[in-house]
Amino acid sequence: MALMLAHQDIVTLLLSLAVLLAAARIAGEVARKLGQSAVIGELLAGVVLGQTVLGRFAPALHGALFPTDGPVALALAGLTAVALVLFLMVAGMEVDLSTVWKQGRAALVISVIGMIVPFTMGLGGAFQFPGAFGGQDGIDPLVFALFVGTAMSITALPVIAKVLLDLQLFRTEIGMTIIAAAVINDILGWLAFAAVLAMMDTETGPTLTLPWTLALTLAFAAFTLTLGRSLLNRALPWIQAHTSWPGGIISFSVVITLLAGSFTEWIGVHAILGAFLVGVALGDSPHLRERTRGTIDHFVSFIFAPLFFASIGLRIDFVANFEPLLVALVFVVAVVGKVLPCAGAARLSGFAPRDSWAIGFGMNARGAMEIVLGLLALQAGIIGEPLFVALVIMAIGTSIMSGAAIQAVLGAPPRVSFVDYASGRTFVSREAQGTPRQVIHELSTKLAEAHGMDVARIFDPVWEREQILSSGVGQGVAIPHARLAGLAQPLVAVAALQHPIDFDARDGVPARIVVLLLTPASDTKVHLSLLASVVRLLAQENRLERAASAANWTQFLAVIRADPD
Amino acid sequence: MALMLAHQDIVTLLLSLAVLLAAARIAGEVARKLGQSAVIGELLAGVVLGQTVLGRFAPALHGALFPTDGPVALALAGLTAVALVLFLMVAGMEVDLSTVWKQGRAALVISVIGMIVPFTMGLGGAFQFPGAFGGQDGIDPLVFALFVGTAMSITALPVIAKVLLDLQLFRTEIGMTIIAAAVINDILGWLAFAAVLAMMDTETGPTLTLPWTLALTLAFAAFTLTLGRSLLNRALPWIQAHTSWPGGIISFSVVITLLAGSFTEWIGVHAILGAFLVGVALGDSPHLRERTRGTIDHFVSFIFAPLFFASIGLRIDFVANFEPLLVALVFVVAVVGKVLPCAGAARLSGFAPRDSWAIGFGMNARGAMEIVLGLLALQAGIIGEPLFVALVIMAIGTSIMSGAAIQAVLGAPPRVSFVDYASGRTFVSREAQGTPRQVIHELSTKLAEAHGMDVARIFDPVWEREQILSSGVGQGVAIPHARLAGLAQPLVAVAALQHPIDFDARDGVPARIVVLLLTPASDTKVHLSLLASVVRLLAQENRLERAASAANWTQFLAVIRADPD
Repeated sequence: MALMLAHQDIVTLLLSLAVLLAAARIAGEVARKLGQSAVIGELLAGVVLGQTVLGRFAPALHGALFPTDGPVALALAGLTAVALVLFLMVAGMEVDLSTVWKQGRAALVISVIGMIVPFTMGLGGAFQFPGAFGGQDGIDPLVFALFVGTAMSITALPVIAKVLLDLQLFRTEIGMTIIAAAVINDILGWLAFAAVLAMMDTETGPTLTLPWTLALTLAFAAFTLTLGRSLLNRALPWIQAHTSWPGGIISFSVVITLLAGSFTEWIGVHAILGAFLVGVALGDSPHLRERTRGTIDHFVSFIFAPLFFASIGLRIDFVANFEPLLVALVFVVAVVGKVLPCAGAARLSGFAPRDSWAIGFGMNARGAMEIVLGLLALQAGIIGEPLFVALVIMAIGTSIMSGAAIQAVLGAPPRVSFVDYASGRTFVSREAQGTPRQVIHELSTKLAEAHGMDVARIFDPVWEREQILSSGVGQGVAIPHARLAGLAQPLVAVAALQHPIDFDARDGVPARIVVLLLTPASDTKVHLSLLASVVRLLAQENRLERAASAANWTQFLAVIRADPD
Repeated sequence: MALMLAHQDIVTLLLSLAVLLAAARIAGEVARKLGQSAVIGELLAGVVLGQTVLGRFAPALHGALFPTDGPVALALAGLTAVALVLFLMVAGMEVDLSTVWKQGRAALVISVIGMIVPFTMGLGGAFQFPGAFGGQDGIDPLVFALFVGTAMSITALPVIAKVLLDLQLFRTEIGMTIIAAAVINDILGWLAFAAVLAMMDTETGPTLTLPWTLALTLAFAAFTLTLGRSLLNRALPWIQAHTSWPGGIISFSVVITLLAGSFTEWIGVHAILGAFLVGVALGDSPHLRERTRGTIDHFVSFIFAPLFFASIGLRIDFVANFEPLLVALVFVVAVVGKVLPCAGAARLSGFAPRDSWAIGFGMNARGAMEIVLGLLALQAGIIGEPLFVALVIMAIGTSIMSGAAIQAVLGAPPRVSFVDYASGRTFVSREAQGTPRQVIHELSTKLAEAHGMDVARIFDPVWEREQILSSGVGQGVAIPHARLAGLAQPLVAVAALQHPIDFDARDGVPARIVVLLLTPASDTKVHLSLLASVVRLLAQENRLERAASAANWTQFLAVIRADPD
């Protein structure tokens, strides 16, 4: 019969998966709230549940939840191996090759210079002073130095894409240049790492000789990104037409990814290279529909990836393996070696000084990719745990830095949404009929109570403005507003009306949602952004109806936060 | 460091997963094309790849792909255990408790009589003649008989729901009664099976005594379906409001399911009961949005479930364990014991004779649930492989039977779509401008060529009809049509027009898509269904635009088959 896990093993496996996933996702959400990448939280959740904290203070509990060998440990190892492969597929899907062609020369120059300099610094440093870089005995110094060079030179596409989106820079010239350079960097970086892995000749290592491995790797990469890509592009509509939707495409993507992963692992360069390249080829197809992509992305990003990153934190002791000098050295070499040459190359390509610095710091984000790379090197025996810990800290540090630094250099405003300034205390679900004046007064009173202000100070200017020009913006939304001198930050109150009230909108539709907006007189930008966010988030027929029938703030927020069905 | 799989194990694991998933999904799609549940194909794929076929004819290849022990086997076992738990969660989500209240008494009567009779027959038969039912030595005869009774009495909700949908009976009185009765049956069936499992006192068995296990099971079920359900219903909007969407809900659902599974496994009644009940509670919440449900459902149904069902077929030798008498006995007892009492109870509740038979055959479908139940009993040592094989064949047989029997009894027409009668040979992507007459003539010519007919026989009646009443149905679609005597089946041709042509529709919108429809003069029903399918599938603005720009039949079909974004 089929090999199945025993009773006690199932209890442990399901429980440990539940605890790991819950901790990773909660910490990931907290990291997001703080404006950081979720990976940081997921990793820290693993650190807390792992050797570093739980293993130290409650070793029995830690051992029971996360056994180090036996069926549960192997099942977890299998799951995280599959999770890693699927994560790389999704990461590959985010790579848009067309931006590379569009940005062309500048991206190529920044990318190549931004790889060669840190690679050389890492390679030279680690070859000359292997001890300083945490090199271990018994490992070929050239392989070790090549790995350190590679680790210094990579850039994490997903992290930097998220930072650019948050700063509303994604579709700008700077943004697209960073993305294009990061794409080139990503692909070259993985190929370089593949070469390093191929040079390792361990017991569990590759089955082929080095030249064969390298030749097959290059051939596979070239095939996947050209002929393979166009074959996939032709296969997708056929599958969509002849199989159940979207299951055909989802299963096909996963099968091809697993096959490619198995193949690249077999030729000796780890499964993730194949998964990543297939992801690039799949993601590039215009026939991969947004919704299918979303289903794959959501399941992988919210189930598999958190499990994988938390599992990394599990078994490594981040306190015992923390070596301050090594951490500092890795950090400085990585940052200096990446920011300066990238900024310089951008300046040479004609970008203004500020923009060049922004590009430099953008390319500096290492994120999840560095952590994956480090883990594989650790497993292959190329590096030891102290260097791995230093790489993880460097990856997290550079990722946090990049957003803050770009913002400091460019002064770009964070995207604002009116819901960020409202709360349950400034929300009204109004059942009674009424007039604009009554609603505005009710909202003004709410705001005054919530922020300890005088009602008249809010109501008077808003009502005055409303009488001059009615604030019904149409599609069932009204935005009475005023700009107040001396306000430290915007104040927002929201009313969901059971009975529509006419705010004299141009389209004649009475308002179902009223958003009262007060902004500091000094800040025109935030005023316009908030106004725009109300229209963007509410002026959709399906959503307005649901938002208007929200009984409380949580329900209202739930409608706003969800994509429209 | 984290326990990871070795190089060769990763190669094997990814390859075996890829092969298993690909085979399962392809066979599942073929089963669907034949109007059957995908589970049947998935299981057969496993049988072909497993002991039964591949293991017999190419044992070396079989052993290399699917090792029976070692890390890969354990990793696969872990993955399929998780897959089973997630499958049961999704199966639970399909249970709509509100239909139970709506259908009320009739459903309750049918369900209870439809359980008691087959349960008694199975129990009595297996207790009196354990040998005939494939009973093994060393197993408590009462436990064995209780299991056989339970196995005879269950009904598979997912299979019967799909059959009813296919036959357009889902929203009818009969359909909702069958569904409601199946829901009650499902929940009671699992509780009965939980009790049987709890009575097994094996080495790897439960950690609690029988009374404790039963008490905790009932308490858990009662809690989950009442207080737990309303807690979940309150938690969902909060999570949606305060976490990233839809990731928060997806992760939360999976975590709660894993925890419940771990708990019910711990109390000694297997993880699937907890997963199923949590699925019921989650699926019942109006706050679980369709799109989130879809993401979970798609990933589980198209990745995890196929892997699980194929893995069942893998190791069991369906040829060596095929005992014709046992198979026949199980089949007859199951069918007679279920169809007659259910049909009788339906008759007693006031249904017409034909409708009562339809309900009887509907309740008879065992599908995936029987297979899961059998597998767990096999693993727990309650039954041997021959009885398992008989149960699987009975499950597949009753599932296939139910659709055909209901159709035979009620004469319900299968849902038809115009695309089923068109093909690449009857599709035109027309770039030139033109008149309705030209398009209709071009399509008539295509049809005539494809089916070896005379052009005039098609064109003349269609054009004659078109001149009397123009066939522009609006929203950019025209459906010129005629009914021909002596036609064996409908003929359909489709034109995607690059330049819109005015077919004089009431809304004044010129046609972008023209569907030429010929139906047998004798069959009014199919004529109307096909007309309706054209309007249903095309009259959506987003979709029409894409369909009209399709360059070939495959692209056209891809647009039709996909949900609108």
